[in-house]
Amino acid sequence: MIRPTRIAVTHGDPNGIGPEVVLKSLTRARLSRYVETVLVGSPKVFRLHAERMGLGERALDSVEIVDPVPGSRAAVQFGEITQQAGRLAMKAVEKATDMALLGKVEALVTAPISKEAISLAGFDVPGHTEFIARRAKSNAYAMMLVADALRIGLVTGHIAIWDVPKRITEKAVVDSIQVMVRSLKRDFGITKPKIAVLGLNPHAGDGGVLGREEGKAIAPAIEDCRRRGTLAFGPFAADGFFGVGSWRNYDATLAMYHDQGLVAFKALAFESGVNFTAGLPIVRTSPDHGTAFNIAGKNAASEGSMCSAMLLARDIVRQRSA
Amino acid sequence: MIRPTRIAVTHGDPNGIGPEVVLKSLTRARLSRYVETVLVGSPKVFRLHAERMGLGERALDSVEIVDPVPGSRAAVQFGEITQQAGRLAMKAVEKATDMALLGKVEALVTAPISKEAISLAGFDVPGHTEFIARRAKSNAYAMMLVADALRIGLVTGHIAIWDVPKRITEKAVVDSIQVMVRSLKRDFGITKPKIAVLGLNPHAGDGGVLGREEGKAIAPAIEDCRRRGTLAFGPFAADGFFGVGSWRNYDATLAMYHDQGLVAFKALAFESGVNFTAGLPIVRTSPDHGTAFNIAGKNAASEGSMCSAMLLARDIVRQRSA
Repeated sequence: MIRPTRIAVTHGDPNGIGPEVVLKSLTRARLSRYVETVLVGSPKVFRLHAERMGLGERALDSVEIVDPVPGSRAAVQFGEITQQAGRLAMKAVEKATDMALLGKVEALVTAPISKEAISLAGFDVPGHTEFIARRAKSNAYAMMLVADALRIGLVTGHIAIWDVPKRITEKAVVDSIQVMVRSLKRDFGITKPKIAVLGLNPHAGDGGVLGREEGKAIAPAIEDCRRRGTLAFGPFAADGFFGVGSWRNYDATLAMYHDQGLVAFKALAFESGVNFTAGLPIVRTSPDHGTAFNIAGKNAASEGSMCSAMLLARDIVRQRSA
Repeated sequence: MIRPTRIAVTHGDPNGIGPEVVLKSLTRARLSRYVETVLVGSPKVFRLHAERMGLGERALDSVEIVDPVPGSRAAVQFGEITQQAGRLAMKAVEKATDMALLGKVEALVTAPISKEAISLAGFDVPGHTEFIARRAKSNAYAMMLVADALRIGLVTGHIAIWDVPKRITEKAVVDSIQVMVRSLKRDFGITKPKIAVLGLNPHAGDGGVLGREEGKAIAPAIEDCRRRGTLAFGPFAADGFFGVGSWRNYDATLAMYHDQGLVAFKALAFESGVNFTAGLPIVRTSPDHGTAFNIAGKNAASEGSMCSAMLLARDIVRQRSA
C-alpha cells in the first residue's frame, strides 16, 4: 500500500495565483494518493480564493490548515502589491519551514511570493531560497531547477546582474558543484553524477577576449573538482550548449546566474518545471513560475508546476530514506 | 522567372566548420535557384576542406572565388586556434564587406570566426557585427536573431557580463528599439511593429529589489518610445516571457545582453536560426552557430543555418527593393 508523504504547502502571496494553484492541486485525485497536504497560511486567504474560483462553501472543510497568525484580518486584493500580502506570505513560509525543521512534515512546498511585497513588509531577503536556507542554518545550498532529466543549478540566484561577476569566484563555483553532486547522489540516487558547467560571459569568454572569469575562476574550479574525482566538464558557452541539447549528456548543468539558467529551463520545460533547493537539511520545492499578478483571481492559472513540485518533493523524501 | 540574389559568402575561420558548411550549401539545388554565391576567402582553404569532405578534385571548378590575399600560403589545421587563421578569416570579411558596400554583391553572409584567433592576428574587435558596422560607418545597428516569427534583438553584444549593466542606459535602449522598428519596417515589411523589451535583472528587477536598471533606464526608454508612437512594451522578466511563449505576441523582442537573447533563441530555434545585423546600409546575415572546432574536419556539421542565412539575406534584399 502507498503511504502518502506529508507536505506543508504555503499559499504564497495572497494577491497572486499561489492560493489558486494550491487549491487546484487538492482536486487532483492521483496526487492525493501520494501526498498528504497540510496548508500553511491564512485560512481566510484560502477561503476567499476558493469563493472566487466557485469551489463552494464546503471546499475546505476536510482540509488541514495551519494558521501562522491566528486572528489576523486578511484580505485579498487580486493583482495588488501590498505590505499585508507580503507579511502573510512570509509568516506562512516561516511557519512551514519550522514545521519541516521540527519534523512535523516531511517536506515543504512554497507557492510564489512577490519580492516587492515582502520588501514592503520589512523582509530584507532576496527570495524564498535564501530565507529558508538562513532559517535552516545552511550555508552550502544551491537553487536547482528540475524537469525530468533536465536539472539546472545556479551559482548565484536572486541578485542584480551588476553583482554577479564579483560573486563568480573559484570557491563559489567549487561549492556549487559539490552541493549539486551531493544532492544528485542523495536526492536523485545518481551514483556518479556528471556535471556540465557553463561560462559566465558570451561564448564562455572566447579564450579571455570576452571576459576573464572563465580563466580566473570557472576553469580552475572545474580542474579542482576533477582532481578530487568529480566528473565536472566545461566551461561551455551557454547558448550553444542548450541549442544543440548537450545538457542531455549530463546529470545536471551548473549555470552562473538566474536568467542564464532559467531562460533555458523555461524555454525547454515550462509547466512541468520545479524549483528545488539542494543542500538543505529539509526537502523544499516550489513551482517554477511567479505570482502572475496579471491573471490573479481569474481562475486561469495552471496547477501543473505546483503538482510537479509536490511529486518531486515526495520522490526526494523517499530517495533520502531509501 | 526567378532572378537569383548575388551574395558574397566568407569562409570564416579556416580551421573551423565555416568552409565546410559553405561548401555544403553549394550542393543544395533549391538554394542555387535563389542565390548566386560568390565565395570570398583563400581558394586553398576551400580546396583543402573540399578534399577532406571527399568532394572530388573538380568540385570548385565552376565556383566564383574572390581571393582577398592572392598568393598567400594558407594552411588548414582543423580545430586549432592560429594567428594565420584569424588573419585569413578577417581579410575575407574585409573584402566581402567592401564588395557589398561598393554594390558588387547584393548581400553579405559570413561564416563563423574565432574571436581568439582574430585577436592573435591583431584584430581588436569583439566580433563580426561590430567590425562590419565600423567599416560601413554605421553607429545605429543592432544584432538580431531571426527564425521565422521569432526575432530577438540585443542592446549589448559581444562584451563581458561585467560591462553590461553600465551599457544599459535609457539612450542605448531607445536607440536599439528604434533600430529594430526601422528594420522591421524596411527589412521585414511590417507596417506597425510591436516590440517586447526584456528586463536586465532576474524577474525584471522585481520592482527595484533585484536591480535598478529597469526603473532607471529600461522603463523610461519604453515610455519615451511610446510617446513617440512606437508600440513598445515591458520590461518583462526574461524567463517567464520565453517560458509561456509571450514572444509570439510581438514582432520582435529586445534582450539586454548576449546570453539572455541567445540562450532563448537557440533553445527555441536551433539549426534554422540566423544572425542579422539590423541598421546597416548593406544586408548582412550569418549562421547562428560558432566555429565548432570540436567537430571541424569531420564532415559532421549541418549547413542548415548557413542556408537559412543565405535565404534570409535574399528575402531582405528583395524587401528593401520592393
